Amino acid sequence: MVPSVERQQRCLLCLDCMLTSTQPFGIHVPPLYMVVSWRTRTWTKTYNKTMRENSNPLLRIKEVVLYIKQQMLEVSPAAERLRYILNEDDDMPTPTLFTEMDTLQREGDELEWKESARWVKFEEKVEEGGERWSKPHVSTLSLHSLFELRTCLQTGTVLLDLDGYSLPQIVDDIIERQIEEGMISHDLREKISFVLLRKHRHQTKKPIHRSLADIGKSSSSTSHAQSRSMNDIADTPSTDQLKNKFMKKIPRDAEASNVLVGEVDFLNKPFVAFVRLAQATTLGGLTEVPVPTRFLFILLGPQGKAKSYNEIGRAIATLMVDDLFSDVAYKARDREDLIAGIDEFLDEVIVLPPGEWDPKIRIEPPKKVPSADKRLGMSNRLSNTYKGQKAVLGEELAFTGRFCGGLYLDIKRKLPWFPSDFYEGFHIQSISAVLFIYLGCITNAITFGGLLGDATDNYQGVMESFLGTALAGSVFCFFGGQPLIILSSTGPILIFEKLLFEFSKSNSIDYMELRLWIGMHSCLQCFILVATDASYIIKYMTRFTEEGFSSLISFIFISDAIKKMVGAFKYYPINTDFKPDYVTTYKCECLAPDPKLATLQLQTCFVYTLDWSQLSKKECVKYGGSLVGKSCKYVPDLALMSFILFFGTYSMTVSLKKFKFSRYFPTKLRKLISDFSIFMSIMTFVGLDMLMGLKTPKLIVPTEFKPTRPGRGWLVMPFGKNPWWVYLASFVPALLVTILIFMDQQISAVIVNRKENKLKKGCGYHLDLFWVGVLMATCSFLGLPWYVAATVISIAHIDSLKMESESSAPGEQPQFLGVREQRVTGILVFVLTGVSIFLAPVLKFIPMPVLYGVFLYMGVASLSGIQFWDRIKLYMMPSKHQPDFTYLRHVPLRRVHLFTLIQITCLAVLWVLKSTFLAIIFPVMILGLMVVRKMLDMVFSQHDLAWVDDLLPEKEKKKKDDDKKKGKGKEKEKEKKKPKPDDNEEEVRNSSFFCPLQD
Amino acid sequence: MVPSVERQQRCLLCLDCMLTSTQPFGIHVPPLYMVVSWRTRTWTKTYNKTMRENSNPLLRIKEVVLYIKQQMLEVSPAAERLRYILNEDDDMPTPTLFTEMDTLQREGDELEWKESARWVKFEEKVEEGGERWSKPHVSTLSLHSLFELRTCLQTGTVLLDLDGYSLPQIVDDIIERQIEEGMISHDLREKISFVLLRKHRHQTKKPIHRSLADIGKSSSSTSHAQSRSMNDIADTPSTDQLKNKFMKKIPRDAEASNVLVGEVDFLNKPFVAFVRLAQATTLGGLTEVPVPTRFLFILLGPQGKAKSYNEIGRAIATLMVDDLFSDVAYKARDREDLIAGIDEFLDEVIVLPPGEWDPKIRIEPPKKVPSADKRLGMSNRLSNTYKGQKAVLGEELAFTGRFCGGLYLDIKRKLPWFPSDFYEGFHIQSISAVLFIYLGCITNAITFGGLLGDATDNYQGVMESFLGTALAGSVFCFFGGQPLIILSSTGPILIFEKLLFEFSKSNSIDYMELRLWIGMHSCLQCFILVATDASYIIKYMTRFTEEGFSSLISFIFISDAIKKMVGAFKYYPINTDFKPDYVTTYKCECLAPDPKLATLQLQTCFVYTLDWSQLSKKECVKYGGSLVGKSCKYVPDLALMSFILFFGTYSMTVSLKKFKFSRYFPTKLRKLISDFSIFMSIMTFVGLDMLMGLKTPKLIVPTEFKPTRPGRGWLVMPFGKNPWWVYLASFVPALLVTILIFMDQQISAVIVNRKENKLKKGCGYHLDLFWVGVLMATCSFLGLPWYVAATVISIAHIDSLKMESESSAPGEQPQFLGVREQRVTGILVFVLTGVSIFLAPVLKFIPMPVLYGVFLYMGVASLSGIQFWDRIKLYMMPSKHQPDFTYLRHVPLRRVHLFTLIQITCLAVLWVLKSTFLAIIFPVMILGLMVVRKMLDMVFSQHDLAWVDDLLPEKEKKKKDDDKKKGKGKEKEKEKKKPKPDDNEEEVRNSSFFCPLQD
Repeated sequence: MVPSVERQQRCLLCLDCMLTSTQPFGIHVPPLYMVVSWRTRTWTKTYNKTMRENSNPLLRIKEVVLYIKQQMLEVSPAAERLRYILNEDDDMPTPTLFTEMDTLQREGDELEWKESARWVKFEEKVEEGGERWSKPHVSTLSLHSLFELRTCLQTGTVLLDLDGYSLPQIVDDIIERQIEEGMISHDLREKISFVLLRKHRHQTKKPIHRSLADIGKSSSSTSHAQSRSMNDIADTPSTDQLKNKFMKKIPRDAEASNVLVGEVDFLNKPFVAFVRLAQATTLGGLTEVPVPTRFLFILLGPQGKAKSYNEIGRAIATLMVDDLFSDVAYKARDREDLIAGIDEFLDEVIVLPPGEWDPKIRIEPPKKVPSADKRLGMSNRLSNTYKGQKAVLGEELAFTGRFCGGLYLDIKRKLPWFPSDFYEGFHIQSISAVLFIYLGCITNAITFGGLLGDATDNYQGVMESFLGTALAGSVFCFFGGQPLIILSSTGPILIFEKLLFEFSKSNSIDYMELRLWIGMHSCLQCFILVATDASYIIKYMTRFTEEGFSSLISFIFISDAIKKMVGAFKYYPINTDFKPDYVTTYKCECLAPDPKLATLQLQTCFVYTLDWSQLSKKECVKYGGSLVGKSCKYVPDLALMSFILFFGTYSMTVSLKKFKFSRYFPTKLRKLISDFSIFMSIMTFVGLDMLMGLKTPKLIVPTEFKPTRPGRGWLVMPFGKNPWWVYLASFVPALLVTILIFMDQQISAVIVNRKENKLKKGCGYHLDLFWVGVLMATCSFLGLPWYVAATVISIAHIDSLKMESESSAPGEQPQFLGVREQRVTGILVFVLTGVSIFLAPVLKFIPMPVLYGVFLYMGVASLSGIQFWDRIKLYMMPSKHQPDFTYLRHVPLRRVHLFTLIQITCLAVLWVLKSTFLAIIFPVMILGLMVVRKMLDMVFSQHDLAWVDDLLPEKEKKKKDDDKKKGKGKEKEKEKKKPKPDDNEEEVRNSSFFCPLQD
Repeated sequence: MVPSVERQQRCLLCLDCMLTSTQPFGIHVPPLYMVVSWRTRTWTKTYNKTMRENSNPLLRIKEVVLYIKQQMLEVSPAAERLRYILNEDDDMPTPTLFTEMDTLQREGDELEWKESARWVKFEEKVEEGGERWSKPHVSTLSLHSLFELRTCLQTGTVLLDLDGYSLPQIVDDIIERQIEEGMISHDLREKISFVLLRKHRHQTKKPIHRSLADIGKSSSSTSHAQSRSMNDIADTPSTDQLKNKFMKKIPRDAEASNVLVGEVDFLNKPFVAFVRLAQATTLGGLTEVPVPTRFLFILLGPQGKAKSYNEIGRAIATLMVDDLFSDVAYKARDREDLIAGIDEFLDEVIVLPPGEWDPKIRIEPPKKVPSADKRLGMSNRLSNTYKGQKAVLGEELAFTGRFCGGLYLDIKRKLPWFPSDFYEGFHIQSISAVLFIYLGCITNAITFGGLLGDATDNYQGVMESFLGTALAGSVFCFFGGQPLIILSSTGPILIFEKLLFEFSKSNSIDYMELRLWIGMHSCLQCFILVATDASYIIKYMTRFTEEGFSSLISFIFISDAIKKMVGAFKYYPINTDFKPDYVTTYKCECLAPDPKLATLQLQTCFVYTLDWSQLSKKECVKYGGSLVGKSCKYVPDLALMSFILFFGTYSMTVSLKKFKFSRYFPTKLRKLISDFSIFMSIMTFVGLDMLMGLKTPKLIVPTEFKPTRPGRGWLVMPFGKNPWWVYLASFVPALLVTILIFMDQQISAVIVNRKENKLKKGCGYHLDLFWVGVLMATCSFLGLPWYVAATVISIAHIDSLKMESESSAPGEQPQFLGVREQRVTGILVFVLTGVSIFLAPVLKFIPMPVLYGVFLYMGVASLSGIQFWDRIKLYMMPSKHQPDFTYLRHVPLRRVHLFTLIQITCLAVLWVLKSTFLAIIFPVMILGLMVVRKMLDMVFSQHDLAWVDDLLPEKEKKKKDDDKKKGKGKEKEKEKKKPKPDDNEEEVRNSSFFCPLQD
């Protein structure tokens, strides 16, 4: 079927001419199809699929041609053959193989098969003297053993689709065949059969209580307490097999392949057999787990080369668990197919030079291994590319051009997930997330509540803050487009309220009514933004803007936490001059004011009637007394204790989070500890605080349900207190609020929806904004603060809900799967916030410094994983120690540094602005960041930006257009090669399979 | 030369019969020699050497035969050939090769050679877009490229020992040869020559200030600011080459091998040449560093396969830096030798299955790579074994049987090192060591001084403690056998002094005189122990005893540090009921005693004359006043501040120590930070303490040079105060002291001399004991405390003097080389201790909690690296997460756990005993540990003990005797295989080179 070299050459030429042609060339399709036809059917499929999916005929054909040319140059004959085999029934996936290798050992006078290694994906070896399983590791083979294995399969017996129901029968069949083919003589039949039917002893893990009981039972290393024998004749699984806990590491549909190797004294040449059974069959105690056997590899050989046989056994076992080879083994039609499988494997192996690596080192399994499809080039690259681009373009933010088009799409996208948003929330992780975020939220509510109360003469105080947080948060989490976002009061809103209150006060306008009208206008404006799909401009927010904003917010969080801590030292000043011996000289006395100087009648009265020495500090000041003494200004211990609580909570949380990566305790327990790290730290330090009994400042929540300011009710009336024009004029300040809210909300949403978080349920920018608008109006009517997405707490929310795959095969690294996207945690957090009033008796034990420690942790944690932060760290690393970030492989370090420097400068400017009155338009400054980003297009090449940032939409489009045109000059072509730094990392290895020297 | 298979078989049989024979078989030697003769000469050499070194003829011949049999089974034909090549002139080591790979690139309209990777030992690649060097990594090759390279060398031009003086001439010679052999046509001469003589552009690292200046210079990724061109014609090194800092990473005698690969449009088949120059020659700008070129590999090929050429280039480059292949390249006589080199390399490569490893991962260089000698089996295993055993037997502790034989040997051994003991001390690391140990010593001196003062009514106080420490320490460090040992007061001695003082007091015996006599007797007893080589019993101290003792001492250190810290909370009680608002109610007043109750005239007088309210606490109590008030009992802030200082110092030291392994800052700076971590932490927290200005307890050293107790002078007279029989009777308590001192001193010495520390200058147990004895007498005469080796501080001393190799080749891991063995640091520490009196003004700023933090660190640090501690941690690790300790591969986990459990029990018992009056015989309890260890022989097999502990001397001897006898039964044989867990880890891989299937 494979055409001659000349024909291949001609095809390549033809393909080349097709590529350079700028005309549509429908007429070329039939010959092209012919080219395709002698390759496997995959290509045809690819071709058809591409044709269907892509509307531009010129483009689609070019893609196919390019693809095919690539394939022709890259694929070896062995791989070619494999494709042919593997595509025969493409749809049926083959079962996973569990491979066990047993070696023949003499136990006393008995021969027996002893398990020496097993593979699910990686190798686990029975330690020689240790009677234990080694850690799963990458099987390092010797080339020699692979070649020997190849010889084995070439010369040995290969029985495919043998009908086997029991081991004795299978062994009989094999021996029969070997005798038929004249490979062994008749007289060996008995002996070989005897050896092959010896008992199998497996290395099984005992429960810990049993192995503890074993301790000290036997005093010599010859004991085999942990192993046991099985009967091979039974064809039902034994209880030992069934009890084996290792079973849960093996996929349910798995089948076994058994490798038996050993040396015997009666053979003078090796006895080799490779058997595939027609049906997977349980062959008694052959395998340590009750998994039916499909493959058998037997190697018996003359004495003296046990090590060599062992290595061959390891080689075939490693091959059997190779995704590709196991497919081949299942589908092979003859011996040659298996050989081709080995050859393809050999083509792809990774070779380490002996002088640069020590073979004794067991290589830990990598985080990720390339898929087998990639090796054969079978992954459908074309369609993948298209899918990828779609996702990047972000259809959620497309400008629909229809009224409420975006909102409609958002609802349509989110509605199907609605039920799962609830039942997926029930998981132990949710508890820790709820506790963590709840504590963050109430701390925030108390802080902002206090500040708002100060700013607005208690029109909005702590009580309103709690109520508003609970209301807005729970509504948003229930109905919002992105329920992982946590709403909260934010700095800019606080400043706005402050200015507004001052304005109303000085102009005698009723504050609450004015605020209501602003809220209503703003709500309307939000609706307009929603209806017109205005959120699509978020597309222009690249990594530069997004990371800049979130870093800034994180820095503010960190600096606030530290400021509050430093505040404790001011609030509880330490008497640094205190000399323990002179304790007698420190006191603080309340002296009655001089009656002569008393201005008020009452005071004069007090002077005589009060026992001034019994008054507390506050009372003394209240009644006009004066505090005299060295210790009046000072408060002992509280500042230092606060510091210990603050720093202790922070560092304990960090250490416990890291505990996940330690070696101690089982994985599940470690994960639990890591998940509950914040809760455990808080508990520890609350406990310590209680133990010490010091009067550290505690978390005090309101205990009564009534507005903070006695005069106001729960409902604000829209009319009556202000002149009519105020109702209209409030449109202007509302505009500012709308912009504030829009920017703050949407950029937080962008950060939450980052592709690194692997969210699956899509986002809902328009829906989010809609609900924020609704809540604006509602809160205004109830006289509650306004709420908008809080970046840092939302990130903390996401972080506490991250999921990792349970590692299935031993040694496989858990993968980050995504985030537990649901509405339960959010709703619970806010319901809890609402009922905090009743939790006051419990909450009052929590010292504030502990909560500031949690804040510090939140700020620091939200910085990690940000590329900007990684790049800042690069400044301090000598280049040889820098981590292997992909962008560093592609962008010169000084360009990366320059980019980072610009980002730092922008943030510094923003930080300074934030400290001025401009803080009110802080979110709007994001627009400034976006402008800077736009200007970066002039400083950096698109190639560099694609790696360290994202491309702007119009550039991306332009780039694609460029790609369509013919490349001019080499440099440009080079640049175009990687338009999107996804998985296009070029695979340099193994690229030429036609030997470049021998044609 | 190589004999037929049958002959080999016969040889093996013959060898077997020789091995089983128990008769001396001198007559067999000639045939054996014949067998050897067709192998390389190495074996002959081995044979001769063994004959010379070993006196038992039967044993020596057997060893040789065993060795040869092993070799016959293990070595491949390619390796065989290589041995032959490499042994021709065994004595001349070949230079290290630096390999540079340049690829042909089109730069605008110009062709040029651009450096794309380089190798010193590991690969460094020029990142494609990054314009930077990748981290050094293990070169992962594809099998394909290696085979292609093999073809290249088979078909291309190989010119060995070409006389080359310039690149043009060499290129001419190559082309000439190719034309001669008809491989290329005449008309290509010009073109090829033109291409090969294009300019070379190297990737050079610029100094940071230049690259910073470059930032922002160019705005497109096409700039090449960091690269530059060189003129290839010049034959002197250019300034750029000379300025290249990379040069210092390359050994001085290095030569270069240049690999040039590229695709050109005028060739239709590849042009390949491998050239070895007769003399290494500098070929202009060919190489980035001014290193003369010895090898050239050129591969030009038709267009379209650049990647494949690249891979072939990487393959030859990797081969060129392979220790073995580079030897072959230097010594190859013809093309076939090179091919054999590749074949041997292929035999030894380590193969990773494609499904289990991602080739994109750059593998970090391993800690250690096996030596090339091992690959050919050329390392002289036999002689190594003998050397190894010698060291283990510890000739330093052999029982000489001569009077002062051990002492004589000690002096003989140490004397030659004496000068180097001084000049090797001058190193920056010594400064940090001195500061660290100095602080440890004075803290210890103050603590013990205070306790001794209490115990002896100030006969020995802080002043004596300082003086004694300085005297004893400096004398010992100057003359002692192991100057790394730090002398100090220890607990048992303290208790002894206490009991002795009480005894003398109650029996009216003069304490100082009695003590002098005990000291003299003890000194004499020490001399007797020295003269009779009694220290040899230390040999019976195995890892079990040694680690048990040192862990216990570490625990005591840790618990003492923590106890002192907790003490601060008792000494400075915190008023936990303090309510900041009621500060007015807290005071402490000194009330005058009731004059009526005053018992003394003086007191009555005071009552009226003193201003009682102005008195300090102490004065008040002194004059009989009473302290009244809520704040009298409490001291604010100091306890918490002490805790912060204590914990801060400890954790900062730990973090800074770890900083060595971080990625930040250049290696040297990190090493400096790590070395000075303790100093920096102390400084930081001293600074913090000064900043806070609190009256934390400070380090106070005596400032005047006079005995603590006014009555006593500096010299104790031996006669006059006690009856004569006391002089004789003091022999009995002296015996106890001697045993105490002997055990304490020698076990500390064993711990210091641990083989893990890789000490090179040998130990001097007898000499140590001699000086301890001398110092006993001296201190007794001067009335100073007695001194003996302090385990924890000595370990800290060693730890702070550890040396690591400077990594030479990029990527090579630094190796632990040993300890800076010298006398300077010790002497300086004690001289400083002596002059501390004058340092008092500086030392008084150091808070005691900071020093307790240092103590805590010392205790914890001395635990790390102890196998016992590692084994304790194993309890908490699930077996799959346990580190890959070698003993875990060989001893069942439950046996390991049992062993650890016994050790823990022993320590617990010792800990309890230590808390009773038995503490005085604490060091003697070590004998108890040794008895327990002896009994363990009954519980554990010698195999297990060899892995987790050491064997006892007599067992070791027995084992060796056993080994000589014929093995009975399989199990025993297995056990004997690894009598000593050194490097005997069996090498299973690549063990069979005769294919077991094809003979």
